[in-house]
Amino acid sequence: MPLTVTRFAPENMPTAELAKALTDPRPASYKFEYFDLSSVGSVPRDILALGGADWENLPINWPAEIKAPFGVFPVLHITTASGVELKLAESFVIEHYLAKKFGLFGDNEWEEQLIKMFHSSSVYLRERLAMRVTWNFKDKMDESFETFMTKALPVWIETHSKHLKDNGSNGHYVGDKLSLADLQTANDIDHFACLYKGDKIIEAIKNCPEIWRVKEEVDKEPRLQAWRQSKGYKKHVALSQTMYANTGIKIAGSTQIL
Amino acid sequence: MPLTVTRFAPENMPTAELAKALTDPRPASYKFEYFDLSSVGSVPRDILALGGADWENLPINWPAEIKAPFGVFPVLHITTASGVELKLAESFVIEHYLAKKFGLFGDNEWEEQLIKMFHSSSVYLRERLAMRVTWNFKDKMDESFETFMTKALPVWIETHSKHLKDNGSNGHYVGDKLSLADLQTANDIDHFACLYKGDKIIEAIKNCPEIWRVKEEVDKEPRLQAWRQSKGYKKHVALSQTMYANTGIKIAGSTQIL
Repeated sequence: MPLTVTRFAPENMPTAELAKALTDPRPASYKFEYFDLSSVGSVPRDILALGGADWENLPINWPAEIKAPFGVFPVLHITTASGVELKLAESFVIEHYLAKKFGLFGDNEWEEQLIKMFHSSSVYLRERLAMRVTWNFKDKMDESFETFMTKALPVWIETHSKHLKDNGSNGHYVGDKLSLADLQTANDIDHFACLYKGDKIIEAIKNCPEIWRVKEEVDKEPRLQAWRQSKGYKKHVALSQTMYANTGIKIAGSTQIL
Repeated sequence: MPLTVTRFAPENMPTAELAKALTDPRPASYKFEYFDLSSVGSVPRDILALGGADWENLPINWPAEIKAPFGVFPVLHITTASGVELKLAESFVIEHYLAKKFGLFGDNEWEEQLIKMFHSSSVYLRERLAMRVTWNFKDKMDESFETFMTKALPVWIETHSKHLKDNGSNGHYVGDKLSLADLQTANDIDHFACLYKGDKIIEAIKNCPEIWRVKEEVDKEPRLQAWRQSKGYKKHVALSQTMYANTGIKIAGSTQIL
């Protein structure tokens, strides 16, 4: 497909000026470019909704035309208060940036490191499932699924459950408030529910009350409840359900597309 | 295998105190716990070597006993100047932390975002290859390899080449000095060289002079040259060559082990 490699920032503007625009304390506005799916893009959207940001979804014109810095999505378009247009690519970078901006990184440097670690561990659980099962060869999906259920998932459940207990089983990974880590785990669970044999994954996680409580606490947030009642969010979930539960397997077929 | 879920920090120490210990400007000492391989662990080791840190490798007692916060490696053990023992897990977290500590994150907030984006894009290239080819089912490796060579790799080469040209084709992603992004790309290349059909990957990357120059610039660093002459580094490379080029395929066999 035709690829246009776009720039991250306006040409010829010194990075010191770009840094000044990026760290401008006045509110910026955002466009979040991703597929109409509730998977990889779901955490950045939750942060923007939670933060009460001025933001909108920007659909991808795929596969007709790919215009992005790395040829992949999501891409976060930022228009700073001073009018500078910046792009951030790569989920980790976007999620860390938004978490910092909207106060989801805890109260100090150590809490920030803890939150980043729990977030990364849950991102990789979803990535492992996507790479090994969801987008693997059709004739290997069942065996890969069994490996996931008997190896990666139990280790994730055991370790996360232990750390959540150490924090008082209060539905939060760090301290007593919502963070990027909580959002990631809750969104993992919502994504798993859309997947091939997702009910078995959900059943295993539900057996761990500490982890399930994280999802329940996230679900209580009034701004997230409002976003989840929106047409946009409902469209993402509906398309995810169709895509991952049915078409996903057919797409993967006997060849890998990713 | 028996798993002990370890804590990230001493029990009952408030996070504000842990944050103070972590951000202590006096030098800390480090133990880096990972397999004797030059793959996932290679970038943190390079940063510690480049930064002239007080550090050592800590081998993993695998599979006899797994003791780690998430049951996976690498884990970075930090003994702060004030004597507090902390652990960081997850590659992204360890690499960002060390890059910030040892001045490999550019000169300002925007350069830091750029470096994080290039780093993430190169991490994912290596991860994709690992998940889809190196550790996939043996009977799917060749087809997966072709998909990698015709899809993921050309997009990475085209986009990275464009951004490196925009920065003046000087062998650095950002500005005119070494960063975490440069280290990641150079280490990707060194890792690919150990892999099944790695010569074909190297050939494709060598055809792009902007990317190859990044590796050449990294290879010029005196402290990295010294580390790469050490017994420890040579052992990692030798074991990687055996493991990935021969045993790796046999290990994967007809079942997935990861």
